[in-house]
Amino acid sequence: MSDSTSSTPLGAARPFVCAELYTQVQQFYARQMGLLDDGFPDAWADTFTEDAVFQEASRLDEPLRGRDVIRDSSRARKKRLEADGIDFRHWLGMLDVRPEPDGSLRARSYALAMRVPRGGELDIFASVVCHDHLVLVDGTWKVAERDLHHDGSGRDRRG
Amino acid sequence: MSDSTSSTPLGAARPFVCAELYTQVQQFYARQMGLLDDGFPDAWADTFTEDAVFQEASRLDEPLRGRDVIRDSSRARKKRLEADGIDFRHWLGMLDVRPEPDGSLRARSYALAMRVPRGGELDIFASVVCHDHLVLVDGTWKVAERDLHHDGSGRDRRG
Amino acid sequence: MSDSTSSTPLGAARPFVCAELYTQVQQFYARQMGLLDDGFPDAWADTFTEDAVFQEASRLDEPLRGRDVIRDSSRARKKRLEADGIDFRHWLGMLDVRPEPDGSLRARSYALAMRVPRGGELDIFASVVCHDHLVLVDGTWKVAERDLHHDGSGRDRRG
Repeated sequence: MSDSTSSTPLGAARPFVCAELYTQVQQFYARQMGLLDDGFPDAWADTFTEDAVFQEASRLDEPLRGRDVIRDSSRARKKRLEADGIDFRHWLGMLDVRPEPDGSLRARSYALAMRVPRGGELDIFASVVCHDHLVLVDGTWKVAERDLHHDGSGRDRRG
Repeated sequence: MSDSTSSTPLGAARPFVCAELYTQVQQFYARQMGLLDDGFPDAWADTFTEDAVFQEASRLDEPLRGRDVIRDSSRARKKRLEADGIDFRHWLGMLDVRPEPDGSLRARSYALAMRVPRGGELDIFASVVCHDHLVLVDGTWKVAERDLHHDGSGRDRRG
Repeated sequence: MSDSTSSTPLGAARPFVCAELYTQVQQFYARQMGLLDDGFPDAWADTFTEDAVFQEASRLDEPLRGRDVIRDSSRARKKRLEADGIDFRHWLGMLDVRPEPDGSLRARSYALAMRVPRGGELDIFASVVCHDHLVLVDGTWKVAERDLHHDGSGRDRRG
């Protein structure tokens, strides 16, 4: 929470996670975003839990609720991008990972969204802060909750 | 040091650091930059040693000397950004870490500085090379020295 | 392979590599790109195998074949950049690593290419997908094959 009165954000001093866990989450994001960017909406949807909630306050009126809705949304997105001849890339970085007592993870990262039309110029158009709740399902990390905050949208930020 | 006459930069063949150390530094930067970007100037200043030196040759006439000066500077920065309604993000990446014999670390990274005014467009306006000297203080990594080089400033680069 | 008919990309479920290997490759790229960006074309060329193949379908008519050709190309590149007074940076991120049975690695990453003329503005002008084949030579990772795909070039993408 960005807070003008507090000078000590919660959790600033909590310990770092171990290298194995940190690099697992890095690899998870590289593959997850690769699936979306390379045009595999179904495999992308499978990286979410069945009851996942996908929030993007500045873009979506309502959260996407459930993997089926997420899949439909990303299939439609793929069709639009292909019709428009656009290559799209999502970069995630500046990853911070916080384990919960139940073994799930809270992950915060910065994201950049960019696109290139065929024969056109690169356009890096959005800086986003991504808060995920990651859970293990049959030994595989999946997103149970994603909350995206677009910089410049003027909404409250979450630290 | 960028050097037209030498073709073998010092240290190109030195060994990599172990995963635990590397991911600790990655996590340190994710949190440190998050504190600055999310508006916690005091917690940000606490990630520097008391006698830290902050150099930014192309922007600062004089280095910032000491945590108190760094804190004052980042408090003033926060006020300016809030008055202007600007979201600011610092990305660090391309991290290289070199241990010193005394257990401290020399870290080199690339940084991108970007801002989004409320309702406005993303502006990624600076590419910076960051050289840090990191020291352990009571078990916590802190920046003892930071040297920022802005690409395009025409000053000598440090490799 | 981006494929409109398939919804299950090969290898999406393969296991992650261990932290030591993943962070070694991260460090390899930070140093390799640093050598190129800081103006060490010979040391850069030494990060390729003697018979390395460097492909950039949308920019090069023919692949560069062999370390000597790669060295000549990067020496010429350095002269052009210095004559033009341009700082150049390559960011790699979103790294995915896949071990081959023979111990070599297939690495996929996203790359951003950017430049800043002296006293000028940052221009992040290319989003590229980088597929490398990395092999150990005397205990050191080297690039045996690099295949760069520029987004927006309209060529088939490789997943």
